[in-house]
Amino acid sequence: MSIFKYNRLDKDNAAVLLVDHQTGLFSLVRDFAAADFKNNVLALASAAKFFNLPTVLTTSFEQGPNGPILPELKEKFPDAPYIPRPGQINAWDNEDFVKAVEATGRKQLIIAGIVTDVCVAFCALSAIEAGYDVFVVTDASGTFNEVCRDAAWNRMASAGVQLVNWFSVVCELHRDWRNDITGLGSLLAGYIPDYQNLMTSYAVKQ
Amino acid sequence: MSIFKYNRLDKDNAAVLLVDHQTGLFSLVRDFAAADFKNNVLALASAAKFFNLPTVLTTSFEQGPNGPILPELKEKFPDAPYIPRPGQINAWDNEDFVKAVEATGRKQLIIAGIVTDVCVAFCALSAIEAGYDVFVVTDASGTFNEVCRDAAWNRMASAGVQLVNWFSVVCELHRDWRNDITGLGSLLAGYIPDYQNLMTSYAVKQ
Amino acid sequence: MSIFKYNRLDKDNAAVLLVDHQTGLFSLVRDFAAADFKNNVLALASAAKFFNLPTVLTTSFEQGPNGPILPELKEKFPDAPYIPRPGQINAWDNEDFVKAVEATGRKQLIIAGIVTDVCVAFCALSAIEAGYDVFVVTDASGTFNEVCRDAAWNRMASAGVQLVNWFSVVCELHRDWRNDITGLGSLLAGYIPDYQNLMTSYAVKQ
Amino acid sequence: MSIFKYNRLDKDNAAVLLVDHQTGLFSLVRDFAAADFKNNVLALASAAKFFNLPTVLTTSFEQGPNGPILPELKEKFPDAPYIPRPGQINAWDNEDFVKAVEATGRKQLIIAGIVTDVCVAFCALSAIEAGYDVFVVTDASGTFNEVCRDAAWNRMASAGVQLVNWFSVVCELHRDWRNDITGLGSLLAGYIPDYQNLMTSYAVKQ
Amino acid sequence: MSIFKYNRLDKDNAAVLLVDHQTGLFSLVRDFAAADFKNNVLALASAAKFFNLPTVLTTSFEQGPNGPILPELKEKFPDAPYIPRPGQINAWDNEDFVKAVEATGRKQLIIAGIVTDVCVAFCALSAIEAGYDVFVVTDASGTFNEVCRDAAWNRMASAGVQLVNWFSVVCELHRDWRNDITGLGSLLAGYIPDYQNLMTSYAVKQ
Amino acid sequence: MSIFKYNRLDKDNAAVLLVDHQTGLFSLVRDFAAADFKNNVLALASAAKFFNLPTVLTTSFEQGPNGPILPELKEKFPDAPYIPRPGQINAWDNEDFVKAVEATGRKQLIIAGIVTDVCVAFCALSAIEAGYDVFVVTDASGTFNEVCRDAAWNRMASAGVQLVNWFSVVCELHRDWRNDITGLGSLLAGYIPDYQNLMTSYAVKQ
Amino acid sequence: MSIFKYNRLDKDNAAVLLVDHQTGLFSLVRDFAAADFKNNVLALASAAKFFNLPTVLTTSFEQGPNGPILPELKEKFPDAPYIPRPGQINAWDNEDFVKAVEATGRKQLIIAGIVTDVCVAFCALSAIEAGYDVFVVTDASGTFNEVCRDAAWNRMASAGVQLVNWFSVVCELHRDWRNDITGLGSLLAGYIPDYQNLMTSYAVKQ
Amino acid sequence: MSIFKYNRLDKDNAAVLLVDHQTGLFSLVRDFAAADFKNNVLALASAAKFFNLPTVLTTSFEQGPNGPILPELKEKFPDAPYIPRPGQINAWDNEDFVKAVEATGRKQLIIAGIVTDVCVAFCALSAIEAGYDVFVVTDASGTFNEVCRDAAWNRMASAGVQLVNWFSVVCELHRDWRNDITGLGSLLAGYIPDYQNLMTSYAVKQ
Repeated sequence: MSIFKYNRLDKDNAAVLLVDHQTGLFSLVRDFAAADFKNNVLALASAAKFFNLPTVLTTSFEQGPNGPILPELKEKFPDAPYIPRPGQINAWDNEDFVKAVEATGRKQLIIAGIVTDVCVAFCALSAIEAGYDVFVVTDASGTFNEVCRDAAWNRMASAGVQLVNWFSVVCELHRDWRNDITGLGSLLAGYIPDYQNLMTSYAVKQ
Repeated sequence: MSIFKYNRLDKDNAAVLLVDHQTGLFSLVRDFAAADFKNNVLALASAAKFFNLPTVLTTSFEQGPNGPILPELKEKFPDAPYIPRPGQINAWDNEDFVKAVEATGRKQLIIAGIVTDVCVAFCALSAIEAGYDVFVVTDASGTFNEVCRDAAWNRMASAGVQLVNWFSVVCELHRDWRNDITGLGSLLAGYIPDYQNLMTSYAVKQ
Repeated sequence: MSIFKYNRLDKDNAAVLLVDHQTGLFSLVRDFAAADFKNNVLALASAAKFFNLPTVLTTSFEQGPNGPILPELKEKFPDAPYIPRPGQINAWDNEDFVKAVEATGRKQLIIAGIVTDVCVAFCALSAIEAGYDVFVVTDASGTFNEVCRDAAWNRMASAGVQLVNWFSVVCELHRDWRNDITGLGSLLAGYIPDYQNLMTSYAVKQ
Repeated sequence: MSIFKYNRLDKDNAAVLLVDHQTGLFSLVRDFAAADFKNNVLALASAAKFFNLPTVLTTSFEQGPNGPILPELKEKFPDAPYIPRPGQINAWDNEDFVKAVEATGRKQLIIAGIVTDVCVAFCALSAIEAGYDVFVVTDASGTFNEVCRDAAWNRMASAGVQLVNWFSVVCELHRDWRNDITGLGSLLAGYIPDYQNLMTSYAVKQ
Repeated sequence: MSIFKYNRLDKDNAAVLLVDHQTGLFSLVRDFAAADFKNNVLALASAAKFFNLPTVLTTSFEQGPNGPILPELKEKFPDAPYIPRPGQINAWDNEDFVKAVEATGRKQLIIAGIVTDVCVAFCALSAIEAGYDVFVVTDASGTFNEVCRDAAWNRMASAGVQLVNWFSVVCELHRDWRNDITGLGSLLAGYIPDYQNLMTSYAVKQ
Repeated sequence: MSIFKYNRLDKDNAAVLLVDHQTGLFSLVRDFAAADFKNNVLALASAAKFFNLPTVLTTSFEQGPNGPILPELKEKFPDAPYIPRPGQINAWDNEDFVKAVEATGRKQLIIAGIVTDVCVAFCALSAIEAGYDVFVVTDASGTFNEVCRDAAWNRMASAGVQLVNWFSVVCELHRDWRNDITGLGSLLAGYIPDYQNLMTSYAVKQ
Repeated sequence: MSIFKYNRLDKDNAAVLLVDHQTGLFSLVRDFAAADFKNNVLALASAAKFFNLPTVLTTSFEQGPNGPILPELKEKFPDAPYIPRPGQINAWDNEDFVKAVEATGRKQLIIAGIVTDVCVAFCALSAIEAGYDVFVVTDASGTFNEVCRDAAWNRMASAGVQLVNWFSVVCELHRDWRNDITGLGSLLAGYIPDYQNLMTSYAVKQ
Repeated sequence: MSIFKYNRLDKDNAAVLLVDHQTGLFSLVRDFAAADFKNNVLALASAAKFFNLPTVLTTSFEQGPNGPILPELKEKFPDAPYIPRPGQINAWDNEDFVKAVEATGRKQLIIAGIVTDVCVAFCALSAIEAGYDVFVVTDASGTFNEVCRDAAWNRMASAGVQLVNWFSVVCELHRDWRNDITGLGSLLAGYIPDYQNLMTSYAVKQ
């Protein structure tokens, strides 16, 4: 008699929001090792491409100390809506951003950004309030330290946000390896060295 | 006036699902020390045997890089349903697996596997939705790191999954030492060195 | 319009249950440094004495490897109900224990013990189901590691258990320093070296 | 169809309560490095000033071992209500304190103090019960260790308290950089060395 | 022009000393997870058997609280010299023990035991003084915490003790896989789950 | 052909120097949990008493913020030389202190204090220079954090200081349990809860 | 009157030895996060290319469970000596390997590999004995856990090995940015995300 | 018969070298919390001022991504030699820098900088070779992670560098509180919140 409805990520109903992954702000992120964190962010971006998910990019004050968006992200999504916010800290307070989200026509929002407790949390809470299903990608979102992260997670989860990691996003979207074995394998190998090693060891035995 | 109903594990109503404990995938597990993790997995398997719980084994792509199931598991359950999934990432998407679960006739599902955030979480969320009582064995399930684990725990607990460890599973199922003192002592001693030491110290004094 | 009712500990309505603080079982506790953990257990026991709270002691198989109750506890509560359970793992499955709890006439149960995920969690969940308000003293309860602890906390909190630490128990019961300044100061100084140091530094200046 | 209402901090509806940040009690705080913790407390205080939030200060037994309030706090708020409690551990048990809170006319209370599990938690739970929206500033509140902190967070969050950090408080109150770019930048630079470094690097390039 | 002489372990010149691996003393070891530590101790013992190294066992007060030797060790070395010391804390103060060591005719001593800072360090320092080459197996020796361990390592290394781990002992003794591929593989697989998984994945591909 | 001479602690040649264990300074110590650290300091003091080692106490500015000596230390050594230094940071710069050390007639100095990198290290380096054998008790000496501790250990060890912990001091001084089984057992039980538990479990079986 | 000679890495006198960076063995490395470790290994390899250092590759049993060399390494050094060892665990026991090292004509050996305590340490100790100056790249060498790593570092440092990290290797070889500003910047940016971010932020301001 | 000479810091013979504390490089430092690290750097600088130690500042590529020197440092030492290096990574390779050091006429060099393993280590090793006594201030020097730090410490200590922290530098230079009680107290209070709290608590009692 469970009343729980498993709200699964669906590649035809999901969009990705990348919020403030800017080169200056990366230097504030200290709850992940730097190489690990960048790897996670790029993995999520590559997943968005792999599944052809509508993706919205936004930045905060990119002409100032926060710096420009991570170049690899801009390159990956040359045609995606890109909203440099003139001042709003919560991206949801920016009309263009909300319109871009609405224009995706998707109801499941996969959100990641810097910093977790502000740019991610504010946007996620607003999106929940607006009726979206929100999935925050925990390992592609960073902040000052674990205390800030833990509080932000608690606040978001209490509001109904689902906390996920990029690998679970990929797997939940893909559903079945047979949908594209090579593609999925390649995606995973690119960002999970342990998995790449398994594949290399396996291949050599063939 | 509590309305809480303590949903206790019942050895006549519980089944065990071991999901993707494969030799390749073990190399992805880094939220536990390797020897500790394997010890936990085997402890849970031995508990399933000790209580004669119906047990279902499943694997993902076992001919590929993920590798075969941990041999000790296959040996322990030679006659258990064994479902090598041809591609479905969520075991619950595989009809044979769901049928095998239904065939156990049990309503309490004790689930463990690799990795926590995908093979365990997806299966657990689907099982909750299907009306089962789900107990995820946290220390017999592993993943990439603590961030992934914490997010997955949060997502599952929010859905009503009960988070347990293998020792609590054993104790909740056994209920009373007098049901089989020697058997329980032997089970615990086999996987908890500290307890085995207590027993050895005690025995020598007799 | 909050509907939250702050369920405060009340010294006229609270009882303490000390579950399986046995010398053998202490060797299983590895989520606290040994000296810290014993200090916490004795602090809680001293608080129970200080506030004259009805206290129930229970042990599991004390003639076997689990060993006898910590001698200091037995000495502190020479006249308290003491229920050595012949086999029940969940103390609430023991009629004498439940009767002893009921005999206190209290509705708020402060529970601590070894191990957190079994002897504490099972008893706490049963007590919640029985309609009691349950406060688990997290730092006077120990278990194998942090993973086991975290899972047990999650399970208990989901059921409505309030997670507290011994210092917050003391302060919530005492309400006002003026009720007994010397007594409270002495209790805190006895178990919090930092506070004792503050008191010593302060006294020398008088 | 979300029913979640994002309860955002509003600078016209929020007040700050600083509870027992006393020089003796600081020595009990061990879940933060000392320099970090003081930095966080002063950052929150400066934010209260920056946004002209009504602020209430209170202390416990400041003539005794707990020591006087941190001098920087007293200096920052020379005209704020200052309630040295004669004995009540829970500030909400002190009528003058509650009156001072009510006198602010605000419904959102931002609370921080020492220690998290007592002076902060008790006050927060009482405030929730009284119908306020409560935001506990996790990194400007300290206690004995992580176990005490985690339990207190769990207890407060279960009651509906929102867990935040000082940086998210600042950003949620400010809403838009354009409201005062220089002021916000200066506030952040003063307490986030990494951000100050970004600003310095940026400025030199102009 | 290096004057360093690489003092390699030589299976024809090495002996193993297992000092006070007793069931009571194991409960004092908290610088390793319990399952990991026991695994390491047994791995070293199995290595001693595999290379047919003369092995000396000794215990301290085994009739008292320290408890008997770990049964698996006694079983592995039924014919090895076994010196239960009547009181000497430093095994080297016991004549029988020193004679047993001398009787091995070996000059390289591989030492492990409980606790690192006493039973291991004292014995190691005495052996160095007596002219032996001493190799302390760090991961088969345990103590109260990392501070004690670090100090003991420093003291021993300053005296010329070589700090090794059991795996490096095995590899340095074996020199070349071809000396016994199957034997070495089996030894490693037995105590390194990650290596066993590699072997299983590999075998299935053959 | 070893030229290493094992410089063992000898109860007829050792003295104990307790440097600046003052109630104010304890609040600076954050490389140990507070209860653990105090336990270690008292254990060392009790060992000094047990072995009748000449002991010298000294303090720095005890009338100021540093506070008085820990009362338990003063009580334990009512007749020991007690040198409150008027200003010298390095105790060895105080003539009375050096004379008190010389008056012990001992050549092995066991030193502990607060903080490790100053009061302990300076005194230890001076004593080494003066020709003494110096043993610093690492776990009865505390400082701000692990970085400070590690640097201080490195500096002292490079100068020839032997790094020990209080338990190894006790065992190296005692040499043989038979010298006083009850006394040693009582000393250990008083400060090592795990050992006390072993003794209690053992006794009940007699 | 220092007699210390600073043995600086010299790009005309240094060679790089990459020992057993094989896909199977990577799964044994748990003292680094997987993505970080691979990043470090590739950074060292790229540095070897950048400085045109003679490089020797070797593997152990690459047809077995240890797996093939990391493909990226083989690709980077298509013409480098490549010695697949038929069985010797210590690469220095393989004549071809030693000859390849000698053929470089270099006296400074920069060594990294898997695992630190065996393949790296054995080779390093043999090389020191053979009269080479040895620099072990700590962050491009991995092993089972920190205990194994720490012991191996201690053993190697005691023999005269210099412990370095890949970044210090690069900087010590390069000496002066002006030797190739663009090249060095590009090398650092490729493997240090934080540095790449600094460069991107800087560039946008130009 | 000790031959150890305690090389104490002497305010008439010591100089301070601050190497590359630049705003861009601070973002690379991840072995300290950001606020702690900056606090340590400023504490060391203030100590240099307090003791009137000759101080030399140097930077690397300050016009590029590394950014300008921390403004507070430049302000504190307006008249100190300031050597912006045009390319040399090791400051000792810059003639002007070496001349500035020589011009101080001091033989004890207190060095700190970013990053520990390069700018600090290279300079320290060169200075040792040049015959200086070198004291590296560990907590005012930062780098990428603990692995890099530990290796660098090992390399420097092996060369004879003394590892200190800023507090021990201050105390060793000051020798006796009576040389300037107020000044020293003020210096410590400014950078050690715990000490400041002690002073405040003490003052209020006067």
